Amino acid sequence: MSAKVRLYVEHPLGAGQSVPLDRDQAHYLFGVMRLQAGARVALFNGRDGEWQTVVVDAGKRSGLLQCEEQSKPLQMPPDLWLLFAPIKKARTDFIVEKAAEMGAARILPVGTDFTNSERIRRDRLQAHAVEAAEQCGGTFVPEVDDLQKLSRLLDHWPDERQLMFCDEAEVGNALELYGQQHENAPWAILIGPEGGFSETERKRLHAMAQSHVVSLGPRILRADTAAVAAMTLWQKALGDW
Amino acid sequence: MSAKVRLYVEHPLGAGQSVPLDRDQAHYLFGVMRLQAGARVALFNGRDGEWQTVVVDAGKRSGLLQCEEQSKPLQMPPDLWLLFAPIKKARTDFIVEKAAEMGAARILPVGTDFTNSERIRRDRLQAHAVEAAEQCGGTFVPEVDDLQKLSRLLDHWPDERQLMFCDEAEVGNALELYGQQHENAPWAILIGPEGGFSETERKRLHAMAQSHVVSLGPRILRADTAAVAAMTLWQKALGDW
Repeated sequence: MSAKVRLYVEHPLGAGQSVPLDRDQAHYLFGVMRLQAGARVALFNGRDGEWQTVVVDAGKRSGLLQCEEQSKPLQMPPDLWLLFAPIKKARTDFIVEKAAEMGAARILPVGTDFTNSERIRRDRLQAHAVEAAEQCGGTFVPEVDDLQKLSRLLDHWPDERQLMFCDEAEVGNALELYGQQHENAPWAILIGPEGGFSETERKRLHAMAQSHVVSLGPRILRADTAAVAAMTLWQKALGDW
Repeated sequence: MSAKVRLYVEHPLGAGQSVPLDRDQAHYLFGVMRLQAGARVALFNGRDGEWQTVVVDAGKRSGLLQCEEQSKPLQMPPDLWLLFAPIKKARTDFIVEKAAEMGAARILPVGTDFTNSERIRRDRLQAHAVEAAEQCGGTFVPEVDDLQKLSRLLDHWPDERQLMFCDEAEVGNALELYGQQHENAPWAILIGPEGGFSETERKRLHAMAQSHVVSLGPRILRADTAAVAAMTLWQKALGDW
């Protein structure tokens, strides 16, 4: 029988491997979930797939699990980055959660000319990505980058990485076509801030050889909705759906 | 210059029409937004498009606006219903908000065999749909139905309405194909509860001539993510995107 509780750990996983738990993990498994020695827990670390483990030692502040067998191989998402401008806290959390669920490989918060929120808590956003992966059966956790300026990121933009650029003022062409023109290329999706892009940003994005405008329909979408919708279009046309 | 404040009202809108405000609306426009006589407000009522109006009378508990000109015609969404099983409060609110943004015509909360939450506040959910339309520039507000049992809804399912059925256990075919087979048909999307459908529900759904299974990729999605992703696929393949 496979475990109902899924937990992300940093420790390596493999046949016969012992996995020590830290205080928070022990509290969650033995305090909150009330598991006892002999109970089963599914672990993943983002590198070694998912492993079924058994509780060997259940303490108040520590514990030990033992790996039995691999229950899922590591399933990497496609090489897709999600760039977005952080907005209100709840919606920023939501975008990170959804990016992990939808299969983004890396999450890059960017500051734009019209972004108001200057700070993010990177560790908290990373924890949201971990939790989304725990809940959704994923074996991979996308890394959340520190906030950086969009203009600086574009200064060093990789030649081969294509950029899906969702601009409400534009009508775009078909993503499938762009995919044929750039076969097997890595991609990124850029979601604008609620106030849109500045003229300078817009000109620069349009001038990039890698950028492709894609329309998200006739209604104006909030940034968090736009993020899910854009990832859906990409996964369906060029990803693993 | 067009107004920055958008407000939903029940009152008819048309050239020269006067629109009285109720207490809450007057408080919002004159107390919160600090508008004064002569200021501009965009109004829509879900039937007459969007109208630019001017504040004629700004009181503490009442007010009067006067319609000047129509700034947007009524833009109806496609005839798409969204059926979903209410979950935790915040995520239920979110699904209703997203359905309004993504262009669903009607929102139907349904109780399934594995749904835990038995109650919804229909009026509160309707208010979320109104707020989403206000924020997103829409001129139409989808109606939120009262909670009803999925089995009862299926007992009276309209012959012609096709049903996109997102079941994580299934691999579906292309929505475009189903669209060609049922040209101009009205549609509905059914999002299952987090616990999935019961075997009885599943058998019944599969046996319906109108139902079409569509896959949402290899990762398990939360119900709110699945709702946005499914509406994206539908709007792109068969809707107005």
